[in-house]
Amino acid sequence: MKGRDIISIRDLKKEEIELVFSVADSMVDIALGKKESNALEHKILATLFFEPSTRTKMSFESAMLRLGGRCIGFSDIGATSVAKGENLHDTVRVVESYSDAMVIRHPKEGAARYAAEISEKPVINAGDGSGEHPTQTLLDLYTMKKAMGGIAGKNVLLVGDLKYGRTVHSLARALSLFGAGIFLISPRELEMPEEVKKEINIEAEGERIEDHIREADVIYVTRIQKERFPDPAEYAKLSGRYRIDSKLLEMAKKECIVMHPLPRVEEIAYDVDSTEHAWYFREAFNGIPVRMALLSLIMGVVE
Amino acid sequence: MKGRDIISIRDLKKEEIELVFSVADSMVDIALGKKESNALEHKILATLFFEPSTRTKMSFESAMLRLGGRCIGFSDIGATSVAKGENLHDTVRVVESYSDAMVIRHPKEGAARYAAEISEKPVINAGDGSGEHPTQTLLDLYTMKKAMGGIAGKNVLLVGDLKYGRTVHSLARALSLFGAGIFLISPRELEMPEEVKKEINIEAEGERIEDHIREADVIYVTRIQKERFPDPAEYAKLSGRYRIDSKLLEMAKKECIVMHPLPRVEEIAYDVDSTEHAWYFREAFNGIPVRMALLSLIMGVVE
Amino acid sequence: MKGRDIISIRDLKKEEIELVFSVADSMVDIALGKKESNALEHKILATLFFEPSTRTKMSFESAMLRLGGRCIGFSDIGATSVAKGENLHDTVRVVESYSDAMVIRHPKEGAARYAAEISEKPVINAGDGSGEHPTQTLLDLYTMKKAMGGIAGKNVLLVGDLKYGRTVHSLARALSLFGAGIFLISPRELEMPEEVKKEINIEAEGERIEDHIREADVIYVTRIQKERFPDPAEYAKLSGRYRIDSKLLEMAKKECIVMHPLPRVEEIAYDVDSTEHAWYFREAFNGIPVRMALLSLIMGVVE
Repeated sequence: MKGRDIISIRDLKKEEIELVFSVADSMVDIALGKKESNALEHKILATLFFEPSTRTKMSFESAMLRLGGRCIGFSDIGATSVAKGENLHDTVRVVESYSDAMVIRHPKEGAARYAAEISEKPVINAGDGSGEHPTQTLLDLYTMKKAMGGIAGKNVLLVGDLKYGRTVHSLARALSLFGAGIFLISPRELEMPEEVKKEINIEAEGERIEDHIREADVIYVTRIQKERFPDPAEYAKLSGRYRIDSKLLEMAKKECIVMHPLPRVEEIAYDVDSTEHAWYFREAFNGIPVRMALLSLIMGVVE
Repeated sequence: MKGRDIISIRDLKKEEIELVFSVADSMVDIALGKKESNALEHKILATLFFEPSTRTKMSFESAMLRLGGRCIGFSDIGATSVAKGENLHDTVRVVESYSDAMVIRHPKEGAARYAAEISEKPVINAGDGSGEHPTQTLLDLYTMKKAMGGIAGKNVLLVGDLKYGRTVHSLARALSLFGAGIFLISPRELEMPEEVKKEINIEAEGERIEDHIREADVIYVTRIQKERFPDPAEYAKLSGRYRIDSKLLEMAKKECIVMHPLPRVEEIAYDVDSTEHAWYFREAFNGIPVRMALLSLIMGVVE
Repeated sequence: MKGRDIISIRDLKKEEIELVFSVADSMVDIALGKKESNALEHKILATLFFEPSTRTKMSFESAMLRLGGRCIGFSDIGATSVAKGENLHDTVRVVESYSDAMVIRHPKEGAARYAAEISEKPVINAGDGSGEHPTQTLLDLYTMKKAMGGIAGKNVLLVGDLKYGRTVHSLARALSLFGAGIFLISPRELEMPEEVKKEINIEAEGERIEDHIREADVIYVTRIQKERFPDPAEYAKLSGRYRIDSKLLEMAKKECIVMHPLPRVEEIAYDVDSTEHAWYFREAFNGIPVRMALLSLIMGVVE
């Protein structure tokens, strides 16, 4: 995978995703600080965050540093030459000559693909508009695989905003590729778009978690994002609709896991944190070995 | 001290503070760039600055880098997911899985203690509201010890805002623990609170520096902070009240040192900088070896 | 050059500039990531950007990291203690004790010179007001030397805002020192100031690129900066005046190179990028080996 751009999860074949996971397994102890590595010593990752996303940026940086690499970059558009009129094209052309790979997050859909077309160095998409965020999808899949031993045949409830949610469309497609059964749980106003539905294995669709929680192996909760709603009243009506708490989870299987890309607002009650169901923080940690694996592969230090 | 949180200077016993100082002594040449060390190679410090404090952040970063360690972090709340609704609890849970220790600065009193309760990794408080800032206290004590050979029996004038000053309460308590005599010099409106006075060795209290400067071994000047005053007129009246200049220092002992946590506004005239009394820049430098010592101790590379 | 401040290109003798270039040549493969170096391991560069300049900051950081060094710093004034009233003097005094050298960019002319007077550690000026930006001048000269084999006797068209342009005055003087012939192309309103003209080798002066493009070995294009014009109408009138495109370049010599300090707005059409004339991205890359050379020289690891 040396030199590859990672713009959409669809750019990766199933075998390539499995390769990332197997490399990630070998990275866990380094990510935990139990083992040391200098595999990426002297490599520079540029992190171009045209909109802020602290956790994602820190996750990439930690992945790079754990392998002995270094980072340069910026974390918001205000602090950059973009303010002076520099365009994405020239920024990418310049930054690629300062680094060995770049991570880009941008408010506009398609920005990362465009950057990848310009750059001769590998580009990773860390979220562009309501588009793709492939490393989030990878770490989500990896987390399910670790928790359940495998993904095929498992029941995954996707809950919340299935219409605008940045990553849930990619995740649904990838889950289908790996043979999971998908349950779509959302308000009617926030239903999964038809063009995604056509491509995925839907087991059921509905508005109530309660109707399917007993069958769930994974409850994947997404945030209903205020910024997607032109009308604040509409947001207020829908935002409190789904809330997972330990009471509700009494209906679930003992081994059912709860995931969330974070940050959560009110979707998961704090009383879930101390239960065996809570996997969202392990999910966040898994971003480190998964990103370490990906960075190692595209920079050619692992094959 | 491996794994210890450093939230308040009161969490440290006198012997532990002395251990920090003795390790700091061994760090001075590394801090000066005269010796090299990789003691913290492969360690990651997360610097979570929910409010800006450039010097403090750079001081921790320099301490970490001088020992071969690395840093991730952010420097203001605007650039973070906090804006999207992420709470301190979840930020800490996520960041602890990306790093080996964290430094937190937060506008709310108690935030660092709360973070330490959540995190399994060590947490250092770099200032929370008008609360504690223990590494500042440590470097202040260390500076006095280096300048005077010891603290017991020395006379320390605390000058300026003794009511709201972030660090001066902690410092007064720590000085008492080490046996210094304390002279409180402030406007009536900014007097040291009663509950602190009860716990410290007060030699004298007054409004005029001139009354006690002859006895002083240390003049510790604090800034009167504009943001503490609801009424700008009140601030204007008090802010210019104490100003140390070389003329005033002619009344002081030859070996009397002047300290200040910086940034200074008008409290110390520039003509003091070139005198033997000026120790505030050495004080700032001392933050490096002291923080190197603390980081090494809590990350378990020194015992 | 150990310990030297680099505030103005005029601080460097011709032989010193040539030394920088010869060291830069030896750095190219390291800058490209083809060779590894730890020449600046354990060294800390402080990057003090009192106004944002992402590319310049990242260029210095990449230069430092490629040589195994580390960086601390800040990228805009809002995130710093400056907001709390800290002055440049004290910031420099403190930061010099945290680092081995510092790079400063500041909106006020003379700020870097002032910092260098205060600091015992070497200071590099990365732009101060409409004053000097010596590393930009060095990388521009280096790029010309690489492209053309040498500078003496070559014809350089300086195009655009020659009145306010931050770097073009320094560049004109340096080009004259190296024996280039200079063609000044600007609107009357943005002519090169008399005091600069007196010191440089002017071959011709005019308003139209077309009049001299056939003779040009280098067309050095500068941006007409909106912020320099009190009247937006005046800016609108002048800003679109010079636009280099591939059609215009058909009049130029085959080996004529086009340079630009970036960011460009509309001064160079995208269709130039794919021609042999386009050297502005190579120019940006050249900032890395030139800054590596300079950092190595002033920190004393190369002589």
